[in-house]
Amino acid sequence: MIAALAGGVGAARFLRGLVQVVAPHEVTVIVNTGDDDELLGLPVCPDLDTVTYTLAGAENPETGWGLAGETFACMDALERYGLPTWFRLGDRDLATHIFRRERCRAGASVSEIAAEIADAWRVGCTILPMSDEPVGTRLEVADGIELHLQEWFVRERAEPPVVDVRFDGADTARPAPGVIDAIADAETVLVCPSNPIISIGPILAVPGVRDALRGRRERVVAVSPIIAGRSVKGPADRMMADLGIEPSCVGVARAYADFCSALVIDEQDTKRATDVESTGMRAIVTDTLMRDSRISAALARRTLAAVA
Amino acid sequence: MIAALAGGVGAARFLRGLVQVVAPHEVTVIVNTGDDDELLGLPVCPDLDTVTYTLAGAENPETGWGLAGETFACMDALERYGLPTWFRLGDRDLATHIFRRERCRAGASVSEIAAEIADAWRVGCTILPMSDEPVGTRLEVADGIELHLQEWFVRERAEPPVVDVRFDGADTARPAPGVIDAIADAETVLVCPSNPIISIGPILAVPGVRDALRGRRERVVAVSPIIAGRSVKGPADRMMADLGIEPSCVGVARAYADFCSALVIDEQDTKRATDVESTGMRAIVTDTLMRDSRISAALARRTLAAVA
Repeated sequence: MIAALAGGVGAARFLRGLVQVVAPHEVTVIVNTGDDDELLGLPVCPDLDTVTYTLAGAENPETGWGLAGETFACMDALERYGLPTWFRLGDRDLATHIFRRERCRAGASVSEIAAEIADAWRVGCTILPMSDEPVGTRLEVADGIELHLQEWFVRERAEPPVVDVRFDGADTARPAPGVIDAIADAETVLVCPSNPIISIGPILAVPGVRDALRGRRERVVAVSPIIAGRSVKGPADRMMADLGIEPSCVGVARAYADFCSALVIDEQDTKRATDVESTGMRAIVTDTLMRDSRISAALARRTLAAVA
Repeated sequence: MIAALAGGVGAARFLRGLVQVVAPHEVTVIVNTGDDDELLGLPVCPDLDTVTYTLAGAENPETGWGLAGETFACMDALERYGLPTWFRLGDRDLATHIFRRERCRAGASVSEIAAEIADAWRVGCTILPMSDEPVGTRLEVADGIELHLQEWFVRERAEPPVVDVRFDGADTARPAPGVIDAIADAETVLVCPSNPIISIGPILAVPGVRDALRGRRERVVAVSPIIAGRSVKGPADRMMADLGIEPSCVGVARAYADFCSALVIDEQDTKRATDVESTGMRAIVTDTLMRDSRISAALARRTLAAVA
C-alpha cells in the first residue's frame, strides 16, 4: 500500500502518473484541506476536487484545476446581482459543491463526502481529507492584513508578499479517519510535488501526522516542487523566499528532513544534490518536470524506487 | 396606481401587456409564493421569478418560465451525484437562487430580495411576494398522499387527481409590507389570468387579503384563465373539476364573486356571459388568448376599462 500527501495541481499530475505504475486501489491520498472555503454559501474543497477530477481524467488540462470543457453561465449571471465572483466556479463544478453542501447538511463528514465524490467519478484510489475538522490557511501579508488563502491566491493573484502563515484550527483538528493508519501501514509514503508551506504544511500541522511520518522516515520520500529555484506552477518559490526559506530543492529538503529520508530533485538541480544530502536526506536526481503522463509515470516509478 | 394579483406564466404574459398600456412604476404586482420550495438547498420562488424574468423580457418564450437561451450544465453534472434533478434549474437561473440564499442568510426578507432581484433585472414595477412568511401549497392526491405543489406539478407531471388543497402556514402568515396598502390605494385591482386554486388561492388565503379586496370590490376585475372549459396552460381545468368546481369562466366567477365585480372572459365563452353575471359580476367579453404582446396589451387595456 502507498500513502501520498497531496496539494493541488502538481500533486494531482504526479498521482496521475502514480496510478499508471501501481494499482489505484493500493493508493491512499491524504489531501490538504487548508484551502477549503465557503463561496456563495457552498463548501469548496479545491485540492480534494483537483485530485479527484485529475485522477478521473476530467480536469481542465490548461489550468490543471476545474473541469475540462467547463462553462461559466451561472457565474456570469451572478454578476448581475453584485455578488463576489472573483472565485470562478464552473457550471459543472458547481454541482460538486451543491452536492457537498447537501451532504454536509445531512450530517456527512468531509471524508465521507470526499469518498462519495471520488466514487461518483470512479476514482479507484482512496481519497482522504487530512482532517474532517476545518483547518484554515491564513496568510499575513506585508501590511499586517490576514487573508484566507483563496483570497490571497485568487482574488489578490498571489501578489502581496507573505509575512507569516497560520493554520487556523490546526491545534485541535484530528487526522481524518484512516490518515494515520495509511501512513503507518504504507510500504511507501510519498510527499507529492506540492507547495511545502501551504499545501503540505497544513497536512503536517494536523496533530499526529508529522509524528506518524517521523516514525516511518525511512519509507518517506518527497518530490521537490522547486526546480532550479522556481516553482513549476504557483507561488511556492516567492512564498518560500518571503518567509526566509531558500526557494530551492535544498529549502524543501530542510523543511522535510525530519520526517523524510529521500528527496527527488530535478536534473537541473544536479549540483544541489550534495546540499540536499547535507540535510540528512538522500537526493535522487531525475526529470521531474511532468510535461506529459509518460514523464509523470517515470517520475512516480523512480520516486517509489527511492525508498524501496 | 394599479395592483395586480399574479401567479406564474399566464399572469406574467398579462403583465407584459399591462406595462405597454400603463407606466410600469404605477404597477404593484402581488405574487403567489405558495409554490416556493427549497431545491438543492436553494430557495426557489417560481412565480416571483417568472414574473420578474418576463417583465424583464428575459423569459424563455417557449416554456414561459426560466430564462431564454438557458443551459443546464450544472443539472446534468448533478446526475453523477444522484441528487434529485426532477426540478431542472438552469445555469443562469441558479444564480438567482444562489443570490436569494445569500441574502436570506444575511437576514433579508422575501420581499426585500424580490425587490433586489427586480432591480437587478431593471423591472420598473413593484414586485411583492404575497407574504414574507412561508405559505406552502400542499395537494392531497387520490391515494391520500400529500404533495408539495412542485412535486405534484413537475415531478408527477400534474397527473394525480387532486382531492384537496391546503395552504400550509396561511393561518399565521401576514401580508408582506405594502400588499394591503397596494390593494387599498389602487385605482384598479387586477386578478391576472392565473390558476384560481393554486396561484390566486394562496394569495387570498393570507389573512387580510380577501377582506381588503372585498372592501374594493367595485374596483377589482379578474381575467378568466379558463377559455371554453380549458386552461390555456397548466392544470387549472382538471384541478377545478377534481375539486368539484366547474372548469369554466363560470366556475372562476363563482370563486371570485365575493371580492371582484367584473370578469373578463373570452369570445369563445360569449354564451356563458349570462351565467357569469348571475354570480353578481359583470362579464366583459374579449379576446383573452395572449398569442402575442399586441393581444396582451389590448386585453390589459380592456380589463382596466372594465372598472374605470
